Amino acid sequence: MLEEIRQQPEALARTLASEMKRIEKFKALMDRRKPRMVVLAARGTSDNAAQFGRYLIEITTGIPVSLAAPSVQTVYGAKLNYKDALVVAISQSGESTDINVVLEQARKAGAVTVGITNEAGSAMAKLAEHVFLVRAGREKSVAATKTYSGQLMMFYLLAWALGAKLRMEDLENIPALAQTALSLEMEVTALAERYRFMNHAVVVGRGLNYANAFEFALKMMETSYVIAERFSAADFLHGPIAIVEPDFPAFLFAPSGPTWKSMEEMLLRLRGLKAETVAITDRRNPGVAKLATRVISIPERIPELFTAIPYIIPAQLFAAALAAEKGLDPDKPRTLAKITRTL
Amino acid sequence: MLEEIRQQPEALARTLASEMKRIEKFKALMDRRKPRMVVLAARGTSDNAAQFGRYLIEITTGIPVSLAAPSVQTVYGAKLNYKDALVVAISQSGESTDINVVLEQARKAGAVTVGITNEAGSAMAKLAEHVFLVRAGREKSVAATKTYSGQLMMFYLLAWALGAKLRMEDLENIPALAQTALSLEMEVTALAERYRFMNHAVVVGRGLNYANAFEFALKMMETSYVIAERFSAADFLHGPIAIVEPDFPAFLFAPSGPTWKSMEEMLLRLRGLKAETVAITDRRNPGVAKLATRVISIPERIPELFTAIPYIIPAQLFAAALAAEKGLDPDKPRTLAKITRTL
Repeated sequence: MLEEIRQQPEALARTLASEMKRIEKFKALMDRRKPRMVVLAARGTSDNAAQFGRYLIEITTGIPVSLAAPSVQTVYGAKLNYKDALVVAISQSGESTDINVVLEQARKAGAVTVGITNEAGSAMAKLAEHVFLVRAGREKSVAATKTYSGQLMMFYLLAWALGAKLRMEDLENIPALAQTALSLEMEVTALAERYRFMNHAVVVGRGLNYANAFEFALKMMETSYVIAERFSAADFLHGPIAIVEPDFPAFLFAPSGPTWKSMEEMLLRLRGLKAETVAITDRRNPGVAKLATRVISIPERIPELFTAIPYIIPAQLFAAALAAEKGLDPDKPRTLAKITRTL
Repeated sequence: MLEEIRQQPEALARTLASEMKRIEKFKALMDRRKPRMVVLAARGTSDNAAQFGRYLIEITTGIPVSLAAPSVQTVYGAKLNYKDALVVAISQSGESTDINVVLEQARKAGAVTVGITNEAGSAMAKLAEHVFLVRAGREKSVAATKTYSGQLMMFYLLAWALGAKLRMEDLENIPALAQTALSLEMEVTALAERYRFMNHAVVVGRGLNYANAFEFALKMMETSYVIAERFSAADFLHGPIAIVEPDFPAFLFAPSGPTWKSMEEMLLRLRGLKAETVAITDRRNPGVAKLATRVISIPERIPELFTAIPYIIPAQLFAAALAAEKGLDPDKPRTLAKITRTL
């Protein structure tokens, strides 16, 4: 897992370089045939990446996005009216049975279909009309890391193809931001020791970092068996915050920019409840230091729009280090296999 | 809370009777102007009801549904292209600031807008073009119960207006099913004692009962401070199941019908992990008894399409009884107020 976490800058640069041509062609198609809605279908870590795609596409293009509920089609056999829709399936292995059913039916229903996968020879790569490959290299660890950040990168490209005003040099800078985030490895490893006996936690994110809250929680569940809840700052206030007692551990993604006001309020509220807070942030948001019990700050100034990839890296490092502190092997979580097939 | 739980059959019958005329008119409009997509916007318990609406509308009408991410508009200021969309906002109080912003912008963007609320005089009732009232009577408990089931009822009516083939006599039978579910009060109260010292749990549901998994977990978090995770059976297998140790408490919604195969597999898997399982089911699915540690069975045969309302009732009763066992007041959860305002 650690090795694959460290490969991310290189994998991201490779994905960007190799998929650019294909995306340019796809953009030309989208310019002619703009979708009325985008549907994203995925499970597990890929579904967390889809959650990021949902915010990114809506924020930067104004096209409404729906995260598919595959069981509507696979369990209930409903036929959905996906005319004028762009249906995007995301799967590391490309072998998620239910996601491939959604893709197949969408294609039959006349939707433009896209598959985002790490495996060029997979069932998904054969089923989708347009295939974009996450060039992360074979992922051996059960806990996905480099394919997640690769999928996030693909969503920047997809948003760009759908009309988002993103500058290529900003995307090309993401691998360097990932490298800077990796420089925190020793610091994060040392911090993880403090949480040796933590058995539950909550992770809070908002907007473009909401997906990271899901992904960080999933990594802690998979590798360290921590019962990790995940919420947006707004949803957390609508009820679940009642579970917070003194010393309750809360992890927060706290970039500067549009979501900061809401995350700042959350940090103040959690301080009032005497919770233990760990905030992931960057040099652009020094104010966090006063509010959180512990701060993980990436030594770089990062615009909020590009925080998602660098911010997940200290979280991945933390999950791997926490598993090690707990004497667990993060590459072989109990009861899990690399490919999960569900219908 | 208990009092309001018991009012549900009456409240449901009242909602159905009083809103029928308005829904018939709305159906005539929808027949002429069929939406290409439905967007549901809500927070907290109302968002759980929206989750049900999402499955119900997609399954019974084939119209794609998106659950809105309000922050896209309220925090990032994006303008979404909601042309040809039906935008439905759901709020008990009708005073959720961010949900009302979504409603207002959708109306400006040319969408047909609907507000579902318990309060005829609320801001939401003024903002929405079409208003449907949940006639639950004033809800005093912070933990919403009767407004949740009332919102589910409204979604049956909304699906019907959008073309779902639902028979009115089946909807008219729902209050009686709710009454039968209430007959379990003593049994469920006795069962709750066993969980006096439970401090974490997972709730699993699928399809039309996925929303109930969210709602049951929320009720346990709000009233009993149990750290309650919630998953669909498929998502749970994609990673989070690693948290399950022997004796880990899992609550499952297990009706007969399309989702049973998947829930049966889940029960078998959890038995293999020596988890403690509590299944909510009905007389139509006697097979559950062999597989779960404890079974709560509604003494009636219920078609899966109509299980959502009766099935949440034993869950509400359980949450209220568990709070009492733990010496807590479910009407006054710590740190919560009845109306939560977020942006």
